[in-house]
Amino acid sequence: MNKNILFKQLLDYETNTYTYIIADKNTKEAVVIDPVFEMATRDEKLITELGLNVKYFLDTHVHADHITGSSRLKEILETGEIWVGAKNIGVTHNDLFLEDGQILKIWDIEIQVLETPGHTSGCVSYLIEDMVFTGDLVLVRGSGRTDFQSGSNKNMFENVREKIFSLPDETVIYTGHDYNGFTSSSVGEEKLNNPRLKLENSFEDFEHIMKNLKLPYPKKLDVSLPANMKCGHRCG
Amino acid sequence: MNKNILFKQLLDYETNTYTYIIADKNTKEAVVIDPVFEMATRDEKLITELGLNVKYFLDTHVHADHITGSSRLKEILETGEIWVGAKNIGVTHNDLFLEDGQILKIWDIEIQVLETPGHTSGCVSYLIEDMVFTGDLVLVRGSGRTDFQSGSNKNMFENVREKIFSLPDETVIYTGHDYNGFTSSSVGEEKLNNPRLKLENSFEDFEHIMKNLKLPYPKKLDVSLPANMKCGHRCG
Repeated sequence: MNKNILFKQLLDYETNTYTYIIADKNTKEAVVIDPVFEMATRDEKLITELGLNVKYFLDTHVHADHITGSSRLKEILETGEIWVGAKNIGVTHNDLFLEDGQILKIWDIEIQVLETPGHTSGCVSYLIEDMVFTGDLVLVRGSGRTDFQSGSNKNMFENVREKIFSLPDETVIYTGHDYNGFTSSSVGEEKLNNPRLKLENSFEDFEHIMKNLKLPYPKKLDVSLPANMKCGHRCG
Repeated sequence: MNKNILFKQLLDYETNTYTYIIADKNTKEAVVIDPVFEMATRDEKLITELGLNVKYFLDTHVHADHITGSSRLKEILETGEIWVGAKNIGVTHNDLFLEDGQILKIWDIEIQVLETPGHTSGCVSYLIEDMVFTGDLVLVRGSGRTDFQSGSNKNMFENVREKIFSLPDETVIYTGHDYNGFTSSSVGEEKLNNPRLKLENSFEDFEHIMKNLKLPYPKKLDVSLPANMKCGHRCG
């Protein structure tokens, strides 16, 4: 990792959600990826201790399992803009929408936006140097589900293959969740070992797996979704 | 981080324990720090997928809250040596004892042993380039307890100040546990923000805090301690 990057990975034990803070060490300009509403006090304290100046709050998608902390953190910190990639699905209270290929900058660190629908129709991933933040598209040895919020097996398969697995094998994958105690993976590892998405699997293999997951209805969907459509504005 | 280092941080949700796997990317020589008995299957799978050849299993101390996975992993993988720092307290089933200042090598990556009693009398930390693995000596914004296993406030305070806080501020601290969702810290951060051990505190301040923690008896101590005195040999 670039020596000028300050990197923090944070976990919410309640929903197994990872939040990331990435900053330029010199100027202290920072971005927060996928903050959790209930963890805003912890995150605000850390951001303040580190003397960071948050420029962007970036969610990877409209989450179904937790409420985003973006609006709450923006309000507490009185700084930053909320940018989301979920266009055309009615998200409000964000400052701007992101586009595929767009580059955001925190000082001289580039954040490249990759539109990666699949888990939901509005998912984006963020590429920052040799790290890619995939939200719920690729998980370590797994993937997000595709059975709600206009999820699509076809989109997931194509986007993982074309936009994530096309990155160098060394690229570190940081996911939106983990349930087995993994904190990261890499493109090379997932290409070989992801039971759903590995290169060895055809789309038909992948679709067969996804159609037979028999997942329960997400516990927090009915609360999270309406709140996250407003970027977590005035929740709780 | 050195480009030749493969780094994995793993979490056991049950006991909030972090396990670390560090390897030389080229030769695949690896070390496992603080594995957890119940997570041996997960860890073995990952080690196998990554094609690693474990040279050392290193515990930071005789744990009171979980059983080490060192012996179980060594048995499953049929490789590696168990080296511990807990001399003179009757630990058995290890291959060798570590000494302060000793250097272990996984190919050309050096692992420097720092004797850091405080949480227990047999605690060691491991310094690998710009990362220090502190076990339960320093936690993120906290510390291990000092009220059993010959723990000592004086030793903890002195060793943190002399052996950890003397490292460059940029040194990343990886702890043995975390309960608030932090995955790492740095020497600079803890010197400023650790409520117990920050530079601003005198030994008297630290001792006052530690004497008033009113901690419950560790749930798993009576099971973990006897098992870990045998490096987790033939447990479960």
